[in-house]
Amino acid sequence: MKKTLIVGTVAYDEIETSKGSSGKILGGAGTYIALATSHFNSKSAIVSVVGGDFEEKYLNLLESKGIDISPIEIISKGKTFYWKGKYHNDWNKRDTLSTQLNVLAEFSPVVPEEFKNAEIVVLGNLHPLVQTSVLNQITTKPRCIILDTMNFWMDNSLSELLEVISRVDVLVINDEEAKQLSEKESLFTAAEEILKMGPKYVVIKKGEHGAMLFGDSQFFTSPAFPVKEVIDPTGAGDTFAGGFAGHLSESKEINFETLKSAIAYGTVMASFCVEKFGTTSMESLKKEQILERLKTFKKYTTYSL
Amino acid sequence: MKKTLIVGTVAYDEIETSKGSSGKILGGAGTYIALATSHFNSKSAIVSVVGGDFEEKYLNLLESKGIDISPIEIISKGKTFYWKGKYHNDWNKRDTLSTQLNVLAEFSPVVPEEFKNAEIVVLGNLHPLVQTSVLNQITTKPRCIILDTMNFWMDNSLSELLEVISRVDVLVINDEEAKQLSEKESLFTAAEEILKMGPKYVVIKKGEHGAMLFGDSQFFTSPAFPVKEVIDPTGAGDTFAGGFAGHLSESKEINFETLKSAIAYGTVMASFCVEKFGTTSMESLKKEQILERLKTFKKYTTYSL
Repeated sequence: MKKTLIVGTVAYDEIETSKGSSGKILGGAGTYIALATSHFNSKSAIVSVVGGDFEEKYLNLLESKGIDISPIEIISKGKTFYWKGKYHNDWNKRDTLSTQLNVLAEFSPVVPEEFKNAEIVVLGNLHPLVQTSVLNQITTKPRCIILDTMNFWMDNSLSELLEVISRVDVLVINDEEAKQLSEKESLFTAAEEILKMGPKYVVIKKGEHGAMLFGDSQFFTSPAFPVKEVIDPTGAGDTFAGGFAGHLSESKEINFETLKSAIAYGTVMASFCVEKFGTTSMESLKKEQILERLKTFKKYTTYSL
Repeated sequence: MKKTLIVGTVAYDEIETSKGSSGKILGGAGTYIALATSHFNSKSAIVSVVGGDFEEKYLNLLESKGIDISPIEIISKGKTFYWKGKYHNDWNKRDTLSTQLNVLAEFSPVVPEEFKNAEIVVLGNLHPLVQTSVLNQITTKPRCIILDTMNFWMDNSLSELLEVISRVDVLVINDEEAKQLSEKESLFTAAEEILKMGPKYVVIKKGEHGAMLFGDSQFFTSPAFPVKEVIDPTGAGDTFAGGFAGHLSESKEINFETLKSAIAYGTVMASFCVEKFGTTSMESLKKEQILERLKTFKKYTTYSL
């Protein structure tokens, strides 16, 4: 079976929206990415760190999805990374109310021997030096390295970020971040600039407005899957990246055509994610539902000339 | 030849963007709609009014495109409708700096005998009573009546607006206006509410983020055509409506399938519109360019599962 190596946070989130408050729940980029990839025909492992306060039921949950959690280090005297955020009516904006790095502050990732030759590597949003450290432990060139990041690292660790960006195949980034990273106002020009930084492909996520793919001198644009009621957008971007990576892990070739399909998979996975609080919908999702929604999405977006 | 009846402003616009100022140029919803429909195999007429200050070269321009301008009333002692607006870096927002109704204040539209049986009727953004007056002069049920409107009429003439909305086949409206009209936050729920008001179909325009189509218990979503550099978004919505109407005028049937294609045509026409100031690109556009871009757009949005 193919292998997908994921590095990313496994965390506690506390989410406030106009529809209610979540309390302290399972969160983290690594969690969302792995829950998404677990629906594909690939063996996923999460490299991460949690504190002694991290509830075993959450580890059991991830394990029950077939995810290899052995590379999640447990620092029993430490506390798990905690993020509290608040959404307003415009889902595209959120306020961070609290970020407690805790055990993440000293995180030194260790890639298990078995995953040093993973076909797909997903570097979830984390300090660029942590992402680089994972790449440095890889022994066999992966078929595809996918990187997610955020504006925080552009503000605080730009040179380290540029270094890791230069080493990946696909950069997944949102529209505002693409503009910030490239210092360009148009997403087209932004993508051109980013491609010069090293990645072969750039995926620009636009939340409820869909996603764009650039690379190989080609272009693809997709709307989002329309969700009747968004309950909680937390993890949607990570779930998108996970669905995207999951489809690539099943694809014979990795090229512009399969990346386009991967965007459809990512889009559909993200649409499930936002329909319930936190990881709720990702926990109970069935493969049939994914395939069904992919068909619906195709119908929603296809026309003849 | 099929006939398309358009009612809408023929006006002077003055546009400021971060890229420059236009001076006083040809504008108006009727102008943009007709310039777009003129590229299709249909005879278009504009019902409108201008003042004695309206330059003949603009009337000649419209006529040179095969548009019947005889129903544009010229009030020699009056002044042409004038709008001045300013765009910021976010193209989706604009400030109106000046609106001078002038001859539009007393506009009483007269539909020429020859167009009372038009197959396609496009009611451009105007006072709902003017739109209603046009419908009241129609003698043969058109194949399709398309209505565009704006928030100003929701604020100031809601009951008249609801009356005319109840009589049309397709309402074309932007996302913010859809929310205001329906008093709903989600575009899905908004569209459901608006369909209850009478139209068979609702098209929600989202500017650079594309468009959505609702009706017949079906759904379609499309991204926008990506434009490398937006120079001036004025008239994009009207040009979209014109391209949409133009395609329907050429379609054997008017149903959900042909409306989907009409959205692609509208999207492509609007993308040309924003590439130059005012009506510039619409004036020199060739049918081959439209067909070429439609093919490109299809390529940009097609993927396989």
